[in-house]
Amino acid sequence: MAFDLPPGLTAREFERALAAFAGAVGEQWVLATDEDRATYSDHFAIDEAAHRPSAAVAPLTVEEVQAVVRLANEHKVPLWPISRGKNFGYGGAAPRLKGSVVLDLSRMKKLEIDVENGTALVEPGVGFYDLYDYIKKNDIPLWLSVPGNSWGSVCGNALDRGVGYTTYGDHTAQICGLEVVMPDGDLVRTGMGAMTNAPTWQLYRYGFGPSWDQMFVQSNFGVVTKLGLWMMREPETMLGIDMEFDKADDLEWIVDTLAPLRREGILRQAPSIGSWLRGAAVLTTRAEWYDKPGALPDSVIDAIRKKFSMGWWSLSMRFYGPEEITAATAKVVRKAFNGRPVLSIKETAWRQGDPPELSAWAGVPITFPLQNANWHGGRGGHVGFSPVLPANGRAALAQFHRTYARYKEFGMDYHGSFAMGERHITNVNQVLFNKDDPEMMARVDKFFRALVDDATKQRYGEYRTHLDYMDLVASTYDFNDRALLRLNEKVKNALDPNGILAPGKSGIWPARYAGERS
Amino acid sequence: MAFDLPPGLTAREFERALAAFAGAVGEQWVLATDEDRATYSDHFAIDEAAHRPSAAVAPLTVEEVQAVVRLANEHKVPLWPISRGKNFGYGGAAPRLKGSVVLDLSRMKKLEIDVENGTALVEPGVGFYDLYDYIKKNDIPLWLSVPGNSWGSVCGNALDRGVGYTTYGDHTAQICGLEVVMPDGDLVRTGMGAMTNAPTWQLYRYGFGPSWDQMFVQSNFGVVTKLGLWMMREPETMLGIDMEFDKADDLEWIVDTLAPLRREGILRQAPSIGSWLRGAAVLTTRAEWYDKPGALPDSVIDAIRKKFSMGWWSLSMRFYGPEEITAATAKVVRKAFNGRPVLSIKETAWRQGDPPELSAWAGVPITFPLQNANWHGGRGGHVGFSPVLPANGRAALAQFHRTYARYKEFGMDYHGSFAMGERHITNVNQVLFNKDDPEMMARVDKFFRALVDDATKQRYGEYRTHLDYMDLVASTYDFNDRALLRLNEKVKNALDPNGILAPGKSGIWPARYAGERS
Repeated sequence: MAFDLPPGLTAREFERALAAFAGAVGEQWVLATDEDRATYSDHFAIDEAAHRPSAAVAPLTVEEVQAVVRLANEHKVPLWPISRGKNFGYGGAAPRLKGSVVLDLSRMKKLEIDVENGTALVEPGVGFYDLYDYIKKNDIPLWLSVPGNSWGSVCGNALDRGVGYTTYGDHTAQICGLEVVMPDGDLVRTGMGAMTNAPTWQLYRYGFGPSWDQMFVQSNFGVVTKLGLWMMREPETMLGIDMEFDKADDLEWIVDTLAPLRREGILRQAPSIGSWLRGAAVLTTRAEWYDKPGALPDSVIDAIRKKFSMGWWSLSMRFYGPEEITAATAKVVRKAFNGRPVLSIKETAWRQGDPPELSAWAGVPITFPLQNANWHGGRGGHVGFSPVLPANGRAALAQFHRTYARYKEFGMDYHGSFAMGERHITNVNQVLFNKDDPEMMARVDKFFRALVDDATKQRYGEYRTHLDYMDLVASTYDFNDRALLRLNEKVKNALDPNGILAPGKSGIWPARYAGERS
Repeated sequence: MAFDLPPGLTAREFERALAAFAGAVGEQWVLATDEDRATYSDHFAIDEAAHRPSAAVAPLTVEEVQAVVRLANEHKVPLWPISRGKNFGYGGAAPRLKGSVVLDLSRMKKLEIDVENGTALVEPGVGFYDLYDYIKKNDIPLWLSVPGNSWGSVCGNALDRGVGYTTYGDHTAQICGLEVVMPDGDLVRTGMGAMTNAPTWQLYRYGFGPSWDQMFVQSNFGVVTKLGLWMMREPETMLGIDMEFDKADDLEWIVDTLAPLRREGILRQAPSIGSWLRGAAVLTTRAEWYDKPGALPDSVIDAIRKKFSMGWWSLSMRFYGPEEITAATAKVVRKAFNGRPVLSIKETAWRQGDPPELSAWAGVPITFPLQNANWHGGRGGHVGFSPVLPANGRAALAQFHRTYARYKEFGMDYHGSFAMGERHITNVNQVLFNKDDPEMMARVDKFFRALVDDATKQRYGEYRTHLDYMDLVASTYDFNDRALLRLNEKVKNALDPNGILAPGKSGIWPARYAGERS
């Protein structure tokens, strides 16, 4: 089958590059059949072909990564590094620039745990299940923080600013020290790791001078080959409060109740206020309830909610630590909701010695949220639209109404959540679709662009986006004629003069591929 | 009086540059008399002349900063940006490279507070007293976190990783969004500020793509002209526990008691375990007790401690929030010290409605810790030696013994503290001296180098250092033949091809001045 080569390369030059890669990593780890290209494509994409790679190469060691990067410079082959490639909704394993060679790091599975200090040092191939299994097998009293899609990489998730359910759920904030292969093949360690054998590499974030960790997040400045991560000690107790709320407009006061609790550090995980479909889409499918096009009517929503005893919104909070403190915290949080029309409240409790609680709140990996891709039937998929809002009810409710109206206009079922950061809200909107429904797929792109446009008018930027929209979203960061993008690209060109590393990631294009910007 | 010109400039070229600066900021804001040069020198330096500037220029607005930076490129004049220049112990207002022109930003005093969200946006000239006065005058229910030397700049302190006394005391971690004049005069806003008028600039740290804030900390990549900072809401209560400990070797179990409380987020400010001299040096002077050279003998230490009822070590902890939670936390912390030989315990309490507590724990600016410079009499001064250790008692005690022996060997009085981070200790050692005692001053440099050498053997790096030792400390970060320094300098040269911005800061030298590295 015909496929796109890396831009500017002839078939012969491409073959020569692959042969060189094979020399560095072994024949069997250069993957360049049609099946391989399909494997590394984005199965949730609106148009898979737009981001199809030409091949993949899968090194095992840091030295092999360095060798591949050097060869990529020599042969002018753009590489797209992935950890485990499970970045679904944002591009999966696929590159921004079609014809790129995927640098698949999933074979790199080294893992060290410092039990006393509660830290991990992981290579990109270490998945949440790997880390969980290791901890269970070795009886280590640490808990993970896992994302809803836990078959992904611990490292990759933190590097794309993914989130989890515990007080350690802001994964990028748990990063402490990286090892990075630079675009020229040089090897850097950040923070205290810049001192050989420093015992504080995973203990102190900043090091001496400028601190680089967050520069390798959502960027294309280097290939992270080791990532330090802080982990939670198994707490003495985990108390919880689950709430359901009846009306869509309850969102305003829910946010206003939670915002000060978050800001003042009383509530220390980032609870997410999720719409009914977040819960329902993993329990049922649309076809069981409705067979017409257009957004679900209210009567059907009511019927689904009734069947599963769901609110319009749901909210779960968890408190971790000694029971004196968690009980006092739960009391303060309940008091904040006093007199409010909460539909239902459930309290939960786990204490050391109880049987393990097998939930994401307790750091147990899960994949059931992925079930939502089946909502419409057919080959399901979704893209995530995730603007950052101020943490206040007025802003949240207005954004909800604006977004809800767009979902209706485009005939899509609303699936939104509002995750409460310390001073912001990440408003994740899933756009669920059926790739086998061409009429629906024709709507998705326009719908998404309308959502971005609406948010930009409010001056709300996205925290993360799909490959298809990286240039669009980067362009909304428009201060001083896109000064930050200009700065990013200046650094990109200095570090990566051949532009071999992830061209186009987060809208950052090296000079060589500047013409590929959409 | 003769003085050093910027390297490579003739007197005439220098005069021309100053005239150009005057055209941008006004005659009166170019400061180039002998008195000016003395004013901007480091009065705590072992050798003030080593870091004497040639002049200072003091812009009022961002546009003036941009103009000065562009002129500095044109005239090849190295600039040393300072906020308020109170970085005592680390260099004060003085530049790393003598003959540099100090870019004094202390006239830039714009200040905005977002009361609802608990954030500030400050220009570099805003001091802690300015911010405090503003908050009091406008009856704003927010608390500052102040450093011991509170006459400095809020912005400058956060940019050098200074610390304070509350749960917001890791000031660099409170940064949320910067405005930066780049070395070529371009103007960048980081994080969500990269979107014009985004309401989330001070609310969400990361923005889209790589996150730059920490790259402008302890660096010479840009001139920060506005800094976003998170602030604490006035808490319902502030409960506290102050402890004194009798024996030097108590340090080990004190650290081991505190480390898990910090790691597990129970104790949320970073308490500092300080040696007796930290307390005594602000209450008395050495001459009142002893008139011989050499470190103070134990009998004198005992007498001083007795007079002021001091332990060998002291420790203060504070808990902020609703009383249910602070009281529960205090209980858990007290329990952790049960059965330990604590010399004395004092509990403190402040509740909303009480008269304001006028202490740094309550965010009130202070300067009395600076009194310690008078310990020896004469023109006093100090340098700080501040390695980062793992948060465990064994490591802390060994480092203490090692350092204490060095203080004795060099005839200096030990002044150390161990500030407990979440997973690390910042071990701040003050070397107090009398600049009018040439014999003492002759010892200080060797002593300091011995301390660095000892720590480096343990693979402990400093988090911050004096101008004199920036190259030395940078050289201890030696992984892969100083790969991180190589990376920093590659970026430095890309952003600042004329090397005009703070050459030598944190050991980062632009190509133009590479020969000045020590």
